[in-house]
Amino acid sequence: MTNPLIHPDRLFPPDPATRDVARRLYGEVRDLPIVSPHGHTDPRWYAENEPFSDPAALFVVPDHYVFRMLYSQGVRLEDLGVPRADGGPVETDPRAIWRRFAAHWRLFRGTPTSLWLNHAFATLFDIDVPLSAATADLSYETIDAALKRPEFRPRALFERFNIEVIATTESPLDDLKWHRAIRDSGWGGRVVTAYRPDPVVDPDFEGFAGNVARLGEITGEDTATWTGYLAAHRKRRVYFKEFGATSSDHGHPSAATMNMSPLAAEALFDRVMSGNHTGADAEAFRGQMLTEMARMSLDDGLVMQIHPGSYRNHNPALFERFGRDKGADIPTRTDYVRALKPLLDAVGNEPGLTIILFTLDESTYARELAPLAGHYPALRLGPPWWFFDSPEGMKRFRELATETAGFYNTVGFNDDTRAFPSIPARHDVSRRVDCAYLAELVVTHRLTEDEAAEVAHDLAYRLAKEAYRL
Amino acid sequence: MTNPLIHPDRLFPPDPATRDVARRLYGEVRDLPIVSPHGHTDPRWYAENEPFSDPAALFVVPDHYVFRMLYSQGVRLEDLGVPRADGGPVETDPRAIWRRFAAHWRLFRGTPTSLWLNHAFATLFDIDVPLSAATADLSYETIDAALKRPEFRPRALFERFNIEVIATTESPLDDLKWHRAIRDSGWGGRVVTAYRPDPVVDPDFEGFAGNVARLGEITGEDTATWTGYLAAHRKRRVYFKEFGATSSDHGHPSAATMNMSPLAAEALFDRVMSGNHTGADAEAFRGQMLTEMARMSLDDGLVMQIHPGSYRNHNPALFERFGRDKGADIPTRTDYVRALKPLLDAVGNEPGLTIILFTLDESTYARELAPLAGHYPALRLGPPWWFFDSPEGMKRFRELATETAGFYNTVGFNDDTRAFPSIPARHDVSRRVDCAYLAELVVTHRLTEDEAAEVAHDLAYRLAKEAYRL
Amino acid sequence: MTNPLIHPDRLFPPDPATRDVARRLYGEVRDLPIVSPHGHTDPRWYAENEPFSDPAALFVVPDHYVFRMLYSQGVRLEDLGVPRADGGPVETDPRAIWRRFAAHWRLFRGTPTSLWLNHAFATLFDIDVPLSAATADLSYETIDAALKRPEFRPRALFERFNIEVIATTESPLDDLKWHRAIRDSGWGGRVVTAYRPDPVVDPDFEGFAGNVARLGEITGEDTATWTGYLAAHRKRRVYFKEFGATSSDHGHPSAATMNMSPLAAEALFDRVMSGNHTGADAEAFRGQMLTEMARMSLDDGLVMQIHPGSYRNHNPALFERFGRDKGADIPTRTDYVRALKPLLDAVGNEPGLTIILFTLDESTYARELAPLAGHYPALRLGPPWWFFDSPEGMKRFRELATETAGFYNTVGFNDDTRAFPSIPARHDVSRRVDCAYLAELVVTHRLTEDEAAEVAHDLAYRLAKEAYRL
Repeated sequence: MTNPLIHPDRLFPPDPATRDVARRLYGEVRDLPIVSPHGHTDPRWYAENEPFSDPAALFVVPDHYVFRMLYSQGVRLEDLGVPRADGGPVETDPRAIWRRFAAHWRLFRGTPTSLWLNHAFATLFDIDVPLSAATADLSYETIDAALKRPEFRPRALFERFNIEVIATTESPLDDLKWHRAIRDSGWGGRVVTAYRPDPVVDPDFEGFAGNVARLGEITGEDTATWTGYLAAHRKRRVYFKEFGATSSDHGHPSAATMNMSPLAAEALFDRVMSGNHTGADAEAFRGQMLTEMARMSLDDGLVMQIHPGSYRNHNPALFERFGRDKGADIPTRTDYVRALKPLLDAVGNEPGLTIILFTLDESTYARELAPLAGHYPALRLGPPWWFFDSPEGMKRFRELATETAGFYNTVGFNDDTRAFPSIPARHDVSRRVDCAYLAELVVTHRLTEDEAAEVAHDLAYRLAKEAYRL
Repeated sequence: MTNPLIHPDRLFPPDPATRDVARRLYGEVRDLPIVSPHGHTDPRWYAENEPFSDPAALFVVPDHYVFRMLYSQGVRLEDLGVPRADGGPVETDPRAIWRRFAAHWRLFRGTPTSLWLNHAFATLFDIDVPLSAATADLSYETIDAALKRPEFRPRALFERFNIEVIATTESPLDDLKWHRAIRDSGWGGRVVTAYRPDPVVDPDFEGFAGNVARLGEITGEDTATWTGYLAAHRKRRVYFKEFGATSSDHGHPSAATMNMSPLAAEALFDRVMSGNHTGADAEAFRGQMLTEMARMSLDDGLVMQIHPGSYRNHNPALFERFGRDKGADIPTRTDYVRALKPLLDAVGNEPGLTIILFTLDESTYARELAPLAGHYPALRLGPPWWFFDSPEGMKRFRELATETAGFYNTVGFNDDTRAFPSIPARHDVSRRVDCAYLAELVVTHRLTEDEAAEVAHDLAYRLAKEAYRL
Repeated sequence: MTNPLIHPDRLFPPDPATRDVARRLYGEVRDLPIVSPHGHTDPRWYAENEPFSDPAALFVVPDHYVFRMLYSQGVRLEDLGVPRADGGPVETDPRAIWRRFAAHWRLFRGTPTSLWLNHAFATLFDIDVPLSAATADLSYETIDAALKRPEFRPRALFERFNIEVIATTESPLDDLKWHRAIRDSGWGGRVVTAYRPDPVVDPDFEGFAGNVARLGEITGEDTATWTGYLAAHRKRRVYFKEFGATSSDHGHPSAATMNMSPLAAEALFDRVMSGNHTGADAEAFRGQMLTEMARMSLDDGLVMQIHPGSYRNHNPALFERFGRDKGADIPTRTDYVRALKPLLDAVGNEPGLTIILFTLDESTYARELAPLAGHYPALRLGPPWWFFDSPEGMKRFRELATETAGFYNTVGFNDDTRAFPSIPARHDVSRRVDCAYLAELVVTHRLTEDEAAEVAHDLAYRLAKEAYRL
């Protein structure tokens, strides 16, 4: 008997002949190891290997995909246990939180969240009844009991998930102590860091000047000067590479880049460090730093990821009460053609450099990103991101990008998640959707099944390893 | 024998298994009453219950979907009986108009207009041959004869269409006499008004200052002052509520909103009333009034609809000759993320408020609208509007919005029409397309058929009633 | 036995019933003559009728679709024989070029290039094994041998391709000597020119002022004056019409148009001719010339094509080394609603004028282009262009444009190619994708099969002839 929460044919094309091809292609990639080159799991989990505390803490409280949807329908975040910035009272009973969540489960119909959670419920906890107010207690107890068992500790799950390598994301100011602890523990799991310098390259980041000063202390460079500041980055990247880093990651409001003369860049650095800078200065500095980081990548080989286009903290009242990452980040229209030109003029023709572009503006896939990646040797396209890490989002990405960029200017899948139990589900959705897309190409005779099988394997495994140099 | 103009399986997915599911889902919603919470039918029809005069007057002359298409291919509007602004001569023979229309019927291949008209021809007049020059006279005579019969009068059609409730749209300057007449007539049909204040909130509207003065006379408020002007709106909304209004409606060039201090708002009001205002002032005033109206909604419970993004009267020569609403309104790129922020900062977190957003820029569905509606408690997404009230438009809306906003941040269907006989056809298209979409989710195992049946019912009936508080 | 490179059902819908309809529709249009109203083949080929030299020169070296993809993956253009601007050394061995190309064939999986090339390999050279490093020499030798045979000379291929008429594109400065030679040769193939005035209407074009002076010499008009300049265009258009021209073509960075007073236009002309002009002047002048050309079209009947929205030569290092048209032209976001208004205000209501709009910004299909073309008598929509001349691109065009513009505001297919052997393949892809789309409409009962057959014929043949007046 199959578990109805995870039908073996889910996400495959309805047409029987196409479905057959999709099944065969999927059969060859289903069990490949997971390569997770970009994400936000907490390295402390792997270092300490403590149990997850309860179902609400695992599935509801930290997952902005989940609580934003309930919030949109009038549920207070306090009632879901989301911590307040001022430490004020919120719901502390995990079962009460779980019941509220379960009672609103229908809100997730048709969303990837329901796919991910059903996958976790079914594969990890053998649950086979849909979540609802009526089944809330049963699922709560089932999950809660399991979490107390050793095979549900982080390292055991890591191994069960068949993760070959996973990247976390840390600030240059992070001492990487959890990564050190993992390394020192003798455990065989491969967990690497990634260099995410937003706190020290974005003048609008809270505490920017202090962060830069702290970077100087950590590296022993004089970050009050432009050359010292750049040297500090170079040193810190080396340090990150010692803990496995193969990439840097950059989350900017836009894709704007700059390529100023050293003198002009130095003057700009002095302005932003003084705090007497305009919004345009901040944007220019972030843009200049993308080009500087690309130059550093030429030297040290880190792959560069650019994640632009999110209007962060759109809801100031919510931000004040609960802080960042509470579901109030909204995508905006994003230009790449003009924005990336200064960086591309500088390094776009370097075949030894890899810059992976992401977007939250799907109108750029076919118009801008695929033509750029289908030309510049340094560019690759990242997988569908955030709201678009979804069956329809992935399908649109392939349909819009492939004809111009092909498959080999893309880099396989990123789960990009903080939600540990969703990792296998997300990779599985990606493999299924890619196989469904490839099956369509096969039955419409745009690809032979042999070619499709090779591409399926590349998309599920090889391209991520190669693009991220893992 | 089925009528070939309305095949029972129309708009269902071709795959047999998916089609079966769609048929079953549709079978459960096909006969639900029509809830029409937003539209532009003429309340006079229901008040006077006079017969429609002839086929051309019913189907061609008032329908800009129809005559714009013929105009695009060189047919003069005069020859279709469209009245000239100067009262100059136009075709007056309805049969001649009908023949011209019929001779160009092929232009509508692949358009929703052909679906709507074929539905009306078949279900209302038992016509079962395609329209063409050859069949023009036959269909003309069939329809013309029917229109003279009592069962084709507006109230009889209203009942035949199984309309549970329909909203019309009136200006604050309207005395609602036809709504009063309907109420006084003792007829049981539920026809409600909606508050559409464009003539008194848009400084660019013809006769704006005079309109505002007239609003003062009607309400007994001093609309020469900002506070009197706001009070007049409040009073008038109460009056509209007496005639069933549960919503206001706002058709602006953009989605721009403002949230100025009372003093600044008052100064702006004085500028726009003086006529000495800039284009930016007009835009700011419209934006400020959206926020003011949202605040009034918090008090009086009217649901707020925002219909932005149409470049009205793009063709000045045509506008001069024939006036507004002649098919020359063209959608434009529309921003929501920055534009709505002032209003959302003010009232976006109010769970008791409902603001329904529409768009003519489909690139915003997944990028802006679904993330906004999937977060802010006050926001809901209206159905595909105008050019997108079509099978492919509806399909794109579900594919682009559902994964992020879910189904329950949407509000069911609006027919939004002036074309009375198209109402059942439009709701039927919507029900079919939604069932087709849901059937895809079922056969790809993203939803169980039980869940899909519940959602189908919600989309066809319940959500519109709830969102519009009808 | 079917050749696996060109499966007879390729690009048809997977659903068996839909596929059957598509097959029948396609069967009726497959063998229609090719009408190629817009493209960039070299008239010298038809005039001289010399053999193509070798496989690399035919398929790789001149095709930016091909070499840009290899370049994006790190292959140097020098190694593909692409000539350097400075005449420096590049690979000259066609077999070495062919082997490099073949070794990277997998990059084209899922792209239209693989469809086009497989079609040419199979139908022209009877190749039935996929290209790869292993088969490179075999295919090279097969093609090379064939090219030496008389039936592979340009005129023979023209006839074999069943081309009824083909348009090339020439600058007003071109003497059309190859067109004259074709005409004088007595050969029956119909090859016409088209008027592409970019070098003399774009102030940013290399050598603009000299080009305008040269136009004066050619026409005997004083092109140092605005009136003389306009007169020169008029004369030159007459000359082009003698060589069959029925259209002009305009490739601008944006769709901006202007309609200045004669005095202001004259002053602008003087500024751009002096070289003392701003970027805004150049944009205004290009825009003004679109309106001037539209007025000339009213007189001389040339159909006007506007191809806006490409950021040309995005990669300056590559431009410097190899020149134009090397795969570094990137689409940009394009506005039509405001940009075209001056031109449309002037001539948009003229039913005797035909302006064909193209786009590289698919977000405008449904939002801007279809509503404009579904209203203005002078407007028609060109087929999917460049990156979108592809199965998914064509499908999106129909899905996004048809419901608002219908089929009859579109103009059939353009191959728009420099790659002679791809012409039959491109028209075949278009016919297949249109038949697949129409078959979907038939099985979802939006169109009868009779209607679909008529539309298929119109899209494959009639509309191009009519719209281009060929």
